[in-house]
Amino acid sequence: MAAVVTNRRVILKRYVQTGLPSEDDMEVVTAKTTLAVPAGSEAVMVKNLYVSCDPYMRGRMTRHEVPSYVPDYIPGEVITNCGVMKVVSSGHPDFKAGDLVWGVTGWEEYTLVNNPKPYLHKINYPEFPLSYYTGVLGIAGLTAYGGFFEVSKPKKGDYVFVSAASGAVGQIVGQLAKITGCYVVGSAGSDEKVKLLKTKFGFHDAFNYKKELDLEGALKRCFPEGIDIYFDNVGGAMLDAVLPNMRIGGKITACGMISQYNLERPDGVRNLFYFVSKSLRMEGFLVSNYIAIYHRYEKEMAGYLREGKVVYVEDIVEGLEAAPAALMGLFTGRNVGKQLVAIAWE
Amino acid sequence: MAAVVTNRRVILKRYVQTGLPSEDDMEVVTAKTTLAVPAGSEAVMVKNLYVSCDPYMRGRMTRHEVPSYVPDYIPGEVITNCGVMKVVSSGHPDFKAGDLVWGVTGWEEYTLVNNPKPYLHKINYPEFPLSYYTGVLGIAGLTAYGGFFEVSKPKKGDYVFVSAASGAVGQIVGQLAKITGCYVVGSAGSDEKVKLLKTKFGFHDAFNYKKELDLEGALKRCFPEGIDIYFDNVGGAMLDAVLPNMRIGGKITACGMISQYNLERPDGVRNLFYFVSKSLRMEGFLVSNYIAIYHRYEKEMAGYLREGKVVYVEDIVEGLEAAPAALMGLFTGRNVGKQLVAIAWE
Repeated sequence: MAAVVTNRRVILKRYVQTGLPSEDDMEVVTAKTTLAVPAGSEAVMVKNLYVSCDPYMRGRMTRHEVPSYVPDYIPGEVITNCGVMKVVSSGHPDFKAGDLVWGVTGWEEYTLVNNPKPYLHKINYPEFPLSYYTGVLGIAGLTAYGGFFEVSKPKKGDYVFVSAASGAVGQIVGQLAKITGCYVVGSAGSDEKVKLLKTKFGFHDAFNYKKELDLEGALKRCFPEGIDIYFDNVGGAMLDAVLPNMRIGGKITACGMISQYNLERPDGVRNLFYFVSKSLRMEGFLVSNYIAIYHRYEKEMAGYLREGKVVYVEDIVEGLEAAPAALMGLFTGRNVGKQLVAIAWE
Repeated sequence: MAAVVTNRRVILKRYVQTGLPSEDDMEVVTAKTTLAVPAGSEAVMVKNLYVSCDPYMRGRMTRHEVPSYVPDYIPGEVITNCGVMKVVSSGHPDFKAGDLVWGVTGWEEYTLVNNPKPYLHKINYPEFPLSYYTGVLGIAGLTAYGGFFEVSKPKKGDYVFVSAASGAVGQIVGQLAKITGCYVVGSAGSDEKVKLLKTKFGFHDAFNYKKELDLEGALKRCFPEGIDIYFDNVGGAMLDAVLPNMRIGGKITACGMISQYNLERPDGVRNLFYFVSKSLRMEGFLVSNYIAIYHRYEKEMAGYLREGKVVYVEDIVEGLEAAPAALMGLFTGRNVGKQLVAIAWE
């Protein structure tokens, strides 16, 4: 007979319509879970090792009248997102107990994954830290790779600017830009992060946006010839400051807008006439557009990591109790590098 | 000996940094001009028949510290823009007296064109009203054609929205969309213009934006399935209202932003996160990007005009004295159709 275990989990307590959520909008509760897969189902029971904290989760804490691009979380139910897991028991022929996988799971100790296809992926390079599959070898990495190569379409010698450049996606975009032969500058929100950009990740230059009184001037200083590609993770005032600094025919890749997610009303961006006068292009994307190229990406990135051409910095908190604060910390810039939660070490 | 003639001309009196210019910022003066081409030069002396009034001219009335994409006008000097002209005398082997041409000229009776290549073009279809070469067979037409086919890249069945739809460019975009098999809706600023869109130009639907309390709702009513292509001539609040109504993967072609040109500070556009959540693309362009395809365009459009597949509505004022008010009228929507000035009839 299957074991029944206690299962600590993080649930959403209430919807947060606007403003910065607090830890108190989530709650850690204890449930009971039977470590078995329902007879006849193709579900997979997993033990969660690491889960990812991502800015887009903020939107899921709000109730949308018109459905958003991802489902809203539901008060009383477990928070879900990507993680790294070990299979405990499986009803699906492609997965067996002991397999290491990554994919969509719950912020809890054990999760029954009802649709292992297409939501679970085998971990093909377990020689790297398993936590990398919440980041550089998972969604954040594919986001950087799909956004940069499929949307930004860089050429050698391009001038590239990346905001939130030490974050989960930004640090990878910057290093991919260097591999492509671009000149790359990043912005971040602390001197510690700026130092990381210049030393660890090899950005050609970087600045602390919180210390610049004039963002437009800071960009002009860093890009006297202008910007060919802006990889935008923040939106708002930085996007507005970038527009006058773009080169003719420049491209803006809209990946995220973290500066806007907790505002009651988004900031207005005013410099849009530069789209006309400089023949600019802006294009947004979702990582789901690029799931089909994940395996090519995983293999390529494993090569870069092995050769030391890409390094990755993670900010790991331990335990589900620490998860709500870690998620909220993304919006104040508390994290240094990719934020994730370790639930169990094996 | 070459005749010396009086030459009435419109000059800029002073720069207008922000706000709506007034007629008084321009002045009609009388000069003397010798109707001869300087010996040995390749210049061409033209008699101006029609000149075009275009919203982009507003930007040229402002002094820019950082050079804009077109040169600023200079106080005391003649206003320049595209027009239709007859050659009076020529130092250039490609042009001879009596030729009908269109291209860059002055708001005056006679202009010495110093660089006939590349600024003057022969009129190949004089069977149409010559004034068409200030619009549907000139820059406005090429703007519509280049912007719609090279930037918007429409497919049959696309849902297309055009703002300032009865204007010089909008009426052509709408009719090109119909020729392509798109569903096309236009907005304009009076009931008279809305009627023109639905009857004369064959838009499937149209609305008067000044009578809509809720632009976002008006667009939802016209496009219950959403918008594939927005051809933006106005920017500002309309662009903001369009964003939530775009379909996934939709495209915005930034052609102009007439609602913004007289504001001290442009309106902020807030709904930019839809770029991410709906994988939208926005791309701006200048008509100069498409000069190389003008002759293909001229031939194709002449065919549409001949077959009655495209009709064109012009708003013609007579005399240089009326030119400053006609230009200003663009910003209050006084004109119905393409605004131009007749200086001489032959």
